[in-house]
Amino acid sequence: MTAVVSRSASPASALVCRNCGAEYPLGPQHACFECFGPLEIGYDPSALARVTRADVTAGPSSIWRYAGFLPVGQDPSTRVDSGTGMTPLIRADRLADELGFTAPVWVKDDSANPTHSFKDRVVSVAITAARELGFDRIACASTGNLANSVAAHAARTGMASIVFIPADLEPAKIVQTAVYGGTLVAVEGSYDDVNRLCSELAETDEFESTAFVNVNVRPYYAEGSKTLGFEVAEQLGWRLPAQYVAPMASGSMLTKIHKGFKELIGTGLVPSSPWRVFGAQSAGCSPIATAFAAGQDVVRPVRPTGIAKSLNIGNPADGPYALDAVRSTGGSMASVTDDEIRAGIALLARTTGVFAETAGGVTVAVLKKLAESGQLDTTAETVVFNTGDGLKTVDAVGAGVGPTAVIRPTVKGMREAGLL
Amino acid sequence: MTAVVSRSASPASALVCRNCGAEYPLGPQHACFECFGPLEIGYDPSALARVTRADVTAGPSSIWRYAGFLPVGQDPSTRVDSGTGMTPLIRADRLADELGFTAPVWVKDDSANPTHSFKDRVVSVAITAARELGFDRIACASTGNLANSVAAHAARTGMASIVFIPADLEPAKIVQTAVYGGTLVAVEGSYDDVNRLCSELAETDEFESTAFVNVNVRPYYAEGSKTLGFEVAEQLGWRLPAQYVAPMASGSMLTKIHKGFKELIGTGLVPSSPWRVFGAQSAGCSPIATAFAAGQDVVRPVRPTGIAKSLNIGNPADGPYALDAVRSTGGSMASVTDDEIRAGIALLARTTGVFAETAGGVTVAVLKKLAESGQLDTTAETVVFNTGDGLKTVDAVGAGVGPTAVIRPTVKGMREAGLL
Repeated sequence: MTAVVSRSASPASALVCRNCGAEYPLGPQHACFECFGPLEIGYDPSALARVTRADVTAGPSSIWRYAGFLPVGQDPSTRVDSGTGMTPLIRADRLADELGFTAPVWVKDDSANPTHSFKDRVVSVAITAARELGFDRIACASTGNLANSVAAHAARTGMASIVFIPADLEPAKIVQTAVYGGTLVAVEGSYDDVNRLCSELAETDEFESTAFVNVNVRPYYAEGSKTLGFEVAEQLGWRLPAQYVAPMASGSMLTKIHKGFKELIGTGLVPSSPWRVFGAQSAGCSPIATAFAAGQDVVRPVRPTGIAKSLNIGNPADGPYALDAVRSTGGSMASVTDDEIRAGIALLARTTGVFAETAGGVTVAVLKKLAESGQLDTTAETVVFNTGDGLKTVDAVGAGVGPTAVIRPTVKGMREAGLL
Repeated sequence: MTAVVSRSASPASALVCRNCGAEYPLGPQHACFECFGPLEIGYDPSALARVTRADVTAGPSSIWRYAGFLPVGQDPSTRVDSGTGMTPLIRADRLADELGFTAPVWVKDDSANPTHSFKDRVVSVAITAARELGFDRIACASTGNLANSVAAHAARTGMASIVFIPADLEPAKIVQTAVYGGTLVAVEGSYDDVNRLCSELAETDEFESTAFVNVNVRPYYAEGSKTLGFEVAEQLGWRLPAQYVAPMASGSMLTKIHKGFKELIGTGLVPSSPWRVFGAQSAGCSPIATAFAAGQDVVRPVRPTGIAKSLNIGNPADGPYALDAVRSTGGSMASVTDDEIRAGIALLARTTGVFAETAGGVTVAVLKKLAESGQLDTTAETVVFNTGDGLKTVDAVGAGVGPTAVIRPTVKGMREAGLL
């Protein structure tokens, strides 16, 4: 009798400490009992190796086509599928021209997700995991985009939610969270204060059945970002780009794209080819880029300032892993000022028609800076990740961006304004 | 020798006057020389009848999978494909429950389009047509969403643009237009004033090579809205819903969905089944709904007020055709107040996770009103069209929508706020 391996079994095999390698059974745990290091999902390599391109392309037009690489959601009926993922990969020839690239530049535009940021990916996976693990409420600490996504997905599924944000967030992000009707707690403090509070609350009896997406179910949550890497490879015709530039807040997303590329090669879904990883931060919050420039492995916490609020994590949990991804591939990091961020938003908008939030402005400004300095190879194919939507940070760019002219409603008014 | 019909030939055969039926060759004309009636695209029925479901599903995941029903874009290399279309059709069970529906209610969510409104559909078709017709600049009069979309598509394609808006538009819509770098003209007046100015400008020598998407290429432009109807039918498994509710500004979109349903039946892509059409307006601008209630065929212009600015067209060009679609199917129309609009936005958000702009609030509030009055059949499958994104009209809903509590960053702070 032959053992029949179900196509719907999870390829995840354990929780693995990223620090010491200790293994634990799959479950709602995020820190190593041995060394307090962060845990991530470990996979059975033979299970991953069974995934074929045909499996992927036969799946839905969402992140769940990659269920074979995710810890949960193999049974479609268990998935929270909000239509997240398979966002456009836009060939940005006019951007490439302006920056002197002779190779293609692509923009992976995650503002196309349901709540208009890449966070819908991690939340889709986290809330699917939370339901499987028996939680009855979903929660998060957020710089805004995650808040929007958690509240929206909770509303969609009918799950209770409680979302924690710094009180000084952009108004659009506050309204877009509150409108979904869950509990929204504005905390007088920085994101790092909010995150610390959530870690404390996660240990209380009252929150025993609450899944904090970026605390107690973080190993599941973080895997959602791998789908950005998978989709880019598929959209390029099953191959990897030579370079990518990604923004860094906690550093998790950049790291997981890198992990995704490695998994694609490991399973034979794409041919092996080298790639270099580049990280982008704002000057107002650049702890990882600062450590990179200093050649250090330890990321020293900072108190964030500046307009790129969605990246304002002063004590980035995945900083060391982001440093490792960049250094091990021969990439680089840079940070940019608020004025450069605004210019980056405008550059992307007028060359590609993509209106990015401040984090996207950071990434494009860093693309420009690293291309000009020669650290990015302008003869090598490059992917830039836009992780959020300009409509969420209108105030940050709004002051200098307005009508060309204000006229009376007549042809004469047009002439007087020099437009005719 | 057999005549080989190219799969890439346009199925469009003529411009046809919707008033007197006169026919004209395809080109940049929008009004009948005989009776001044509006022109629309006429098709060769045998060409439409050649389109198969397999043709559609083999196409891209965008509106262009329906090129066989559109006047332009049969050759993929001519298309402006921004990834518009194939937006989610969301089964809204919790919304249905609240409103007492026993049949499924679906939300067709066009906030998922690139610039987050249904206008990306009409602009994709209009700009593709404009290029084929030899125009070198694209223009529009807009209540906001169209402005966003025209400016973004112009930036994407590198085409020059000039966009006209009422000066009092929502700030987010102004910024999201200006950021793309085209010419943006703010006009001191209503949308109807802006539209009249554009009609005058379209006749000037200086604008001879400018395509006003909703003036001189309007017959092409308007066809883009049919794809909303096509996608709904495909997403339901190639069948029509029994009822749909759509917002009305000019009345064009509601009318074109109806036309799309008729074409699907005419070509045999879906089985013939009856459907009823329902139109939604705001109390601040309800010229079509007012004519419907009065049993009149003539739509009397009004001066618009109220928060649903994207619907504030006081002199709606397609009003008579919208009245006809609704009356001929046994549907109805209603209008709702600003408070009902805000409640509609909140109702949709907390039951489905979809954050709509004010126009979506109008539609959901009308859904509720017509269900309560018995004019909508709550035992019949119903599709509601959300045409835009809440992030564009944050100020309209923001006042009453905010955090549950503001606390200090401590567990004690949580207790004091009664959250623990």
